[in-house]
Amino acid sequence: MSTRIEIDAEMVRQHVYDLAEFGKVGESGVTRLVYSPEWVAATDKYAAWCQEGGLEVHRDAVGNVWGVLKGTEKGKSIVSGSHIDSQAPGGRYDGALGALSAMIALKVLKAQFGQPKRTLEAVALCEEESSRFPSANYWGSRAITGRIGTHVADETIAFTGETMAEAMQAIGLDPKSIPQARRNDIDSFIELHIEQGPILEQEDLPVAIVTAITGIRHYNVMLRGTQNHAGGFPMDIRRDPMAGFAEIASGVVNTAHRMGRPAVTTVGRAVVRPNFPAIIPDSVEFSIDARHPDAQKRQELYTAHERLMREVAERRGLDIEWDVRIDHDPAPSDPGILRTLERVAQEQGVKTLNMASGAGHDSQQMASIAKTAMIFVRSKDGRSHTPDEYSSIEDIVEGVKVLTGGLHALAY
Amino acid sequence: MSTRIEIDAEMVRQHVYDLAEFGKVGESGVTRLVYSPEWVAATDKYAAWCQEGGLEVHRDAVGNVWGVLKGTEKGKSIVSGSHIDSQAPGGRYDGALGALSAMIALKVLKAQFGQPKRTLEAVALCEEESSRFPSANYWGSRAITGRIGTHVADETIAFTGETMAEAMQAIGLDPKSIPQARRNDIDSFIELHIEQGPILEQEDLPVAIVTAITGIRHYNVMLRGTQNHAGGFPMDIRRDPMAGFAEIASGVVNTAHRMGRPAVTTVGRAVVRPNFPAIIPDSVEFSIDARHPDAQKRQELYTAHERLMREVAERRGLDIEWDVRIDHDPAPSDPGILRTLERVAQEQGVKTLNMASGAGHDSQQMASIAKTAMIFVRSKDGRSHTPDEYSSIEDIVEGVKVLTGGLHALAY
Repeated sequence: MSTRIEIDAEMVRQHVYDLAEFGKVGESGVTRLVYSPEWVAATDKYAAWCQEGGLEVHRDAVGNVWGVLKGTEKGKSIVSGSHIDSQAPGGRYDGALGALSAMIALKVLKAQFGQPKRTLEAVALCEEESSRFPSANYWGSRAITGRIGTHVADETIAFTGETMAEAMQAIGLDPKSIPQARRNDIDSFIELHIEQGPILEQEDLPVAIVTAITGIRHYNVMLRGTQNHAGGFPMDIRRDPMAGFAEIASGVVNTAHRMGRPAVTTVGRAVVRPNFPAIIPDSVEFSIDARHPDAQKRQELYTAHERLMREVAERRGLDIEWDVRIDHDPAPSDPGILRTLERVAQEQGVKTLNMASGAGHDSQQMASIAKTAMIFVRSKDGRSHTPDEYSSIEDIVEGVKVLTGGLHALAY
Repeated sequence: MSTRIEIDAEMVRQHVYDLAEFGKVGESGVTRLVYSPEWVAATDKYAAWCQEGGLEVHRDAVGNVWGVLKGTEKGKSIVSGSHIDSQAPGGRYDGALGALSAMIALKVLKAQFGQPKRTLEAVALCEEESSRFPSANYWGSRAITGRIGTHVADETIAFTGETMAEAMQAIGLDPKSIPQARRNDIDSFIELHIEQGPILEQEDLPVAIVTAITGIRHYNVMLRGTQNHAGGFPMDIRRDPMAGFAEIASGVVNTAHRMGRPAVTTVGRAVVRPNFPAIIPDSVEFSIDARHPDAQKRQELYTAHERLMREVAERRGLDIEWDVRIDHDPAPSDPGILRTLERVAQEQGVKTLNMASGAGHDSQQMASIAKTAMIFVRSKDGRSHTPDEYSSIEDIVEGVKVLTGGLHALAY
């Protein structure tokens, strides 16, 4: 049964721009760090909007804001949302768009279709970006999934030195209550987000349905050789870690390129010591970020990278060691929700494609307690984490239609 | 006609260790910056040793110390020496050994053979290392060759902020007199120096005769791409400057390696921006240090490097620009002096090999006004610019024999 969903573009635009006033930087930038005054004001506004739309509002122990539309039937909730904190500075869309879309969807559904069978909830999550606390990422969704240990709030330190516990207490949250944020009554979680890549733009489509969130691994690699005079040491007897690094970096990038989309490998960081033109370096420390949404292909990618590192280090007589600093499994979307979203998009006349997400998201955390799926909205030039990120209101409306239709199909 | 040169090893050892007391750091380190109290004391001692040996001593306008053994005939001088300043900290041998050897050679010659036909001079040069004034390198030899412009002493700034002119005035030297240091009466300049590389050690030989000082070029390269999210951007559409840098660094190193000794190319410095693991970088700025003592081979090396840089940047859609920050022509040793040194080494029973110098030296400057040649003494592990640099007194004596024999052959 096809149901026409009507979304008021001007209302959507108003919400996007109004929320962006909290922490506004320059013309289009936003710096909204978790538990900052701007963040508190934004969550207050979010709560007020939920209330105006007839949703029941509450905040949990870490400050996630929930807007609830009770169902007639008992059972687990259908939830949508994303994070309301930003990069420093980020833009108007990354995160904020998913929190707003969930709230808008529930208000539209309530206004157009009344009370659902299943309980629907919109949520504004906190500190996904780690922009205030570098080690806190997915703070809000980790609290919901019960993944934050007892002492973590005391041990999590901001870029500016204060602890997470102090920052929470400063706005009236009790770190001891964090376990109370845990939920075990969420059936499904659907997150709308900007793409953060250029694929939709290249395909000239407004919306994508996300089939999986990629698996991510970060290696931190230390490659050591022998520091020497750049003039006095013949090439054939050098232990040059820069030469080894260059070979490894070139190789891992080529490996991901040859494997083809959606494999990606990035060397984003390199620190050379002592870093002088006329000295063969003593060491190069560098990162490898490798991602694939397919569990087996991902393993192939990691194995190829590790084999190359060992081979180059051995052949060049270099000392190598690495540690894995981030290692997230891929989170495949729920096949049932995927089919529902695909069907709804067709019914609403929204053209979509299916793709994996190369970026991590709160949904990856939520996947441990609920069925998940995501909806992507086209990003101009694929940009994010910058005041320059931009999605058109037309594209956003197309995304909200798919989200609203999907929630309708699951809850009514 | 073969002449047996006798060198007292204990006397040599005493001079090396006594000079190393001026600016001594730890057990074997030396920090002797130009115009510092330690440097002044070291040059005073050098002058005193020259005088004790019957040499006429004077200082020139920049503080180079000269010990002169007048010849019976008129004509240009035969000069030997090296720099008496050190790295911060360096060791006992780099530079100091050449200044001492020249002085020892002249004293031995005077004692053993009396007055020469040609005038012989020993010199302790200043600020070869740029260890006090980063842009002042070859200060002493540049003054002698007339290569220091009028305002340079005011524009040359120390790491600690003072100008060269101020540092000179503080020890009673007048910067306005710098042009008076110029010499146009030097026929030949022979410099003894530690090798700063491992070739003699590998060949198990004490001494090398230097056929040329290498040509050196430093490129500073800026490679720019497009900064993006490491997850969202497919490999096939990235403009990743790290991938381009890695390919170029690997390529230039391999080019020099394939060309074979004595070609060397080093990438010693790389600065990545913004340098985060999950961000495809915006830019990589890096250095290429490429050296070859043969003028034509050197041009081939540079051409290959530049071709690769252009090719990689174009293929990867990256913006590239570079500037050449250092560009020294090779300085071939004088064939006549080379033959003399080879013959003398054989006569004195010193086993040598011929090699090019991969490092720059004062001789490179002196080559603009005189015939030049160098003698290298084996360095343990090829090390220099560190308190760990070490050459045995046995090897040093072998080097001094060749130098003394060479000066004898040229001047008597």
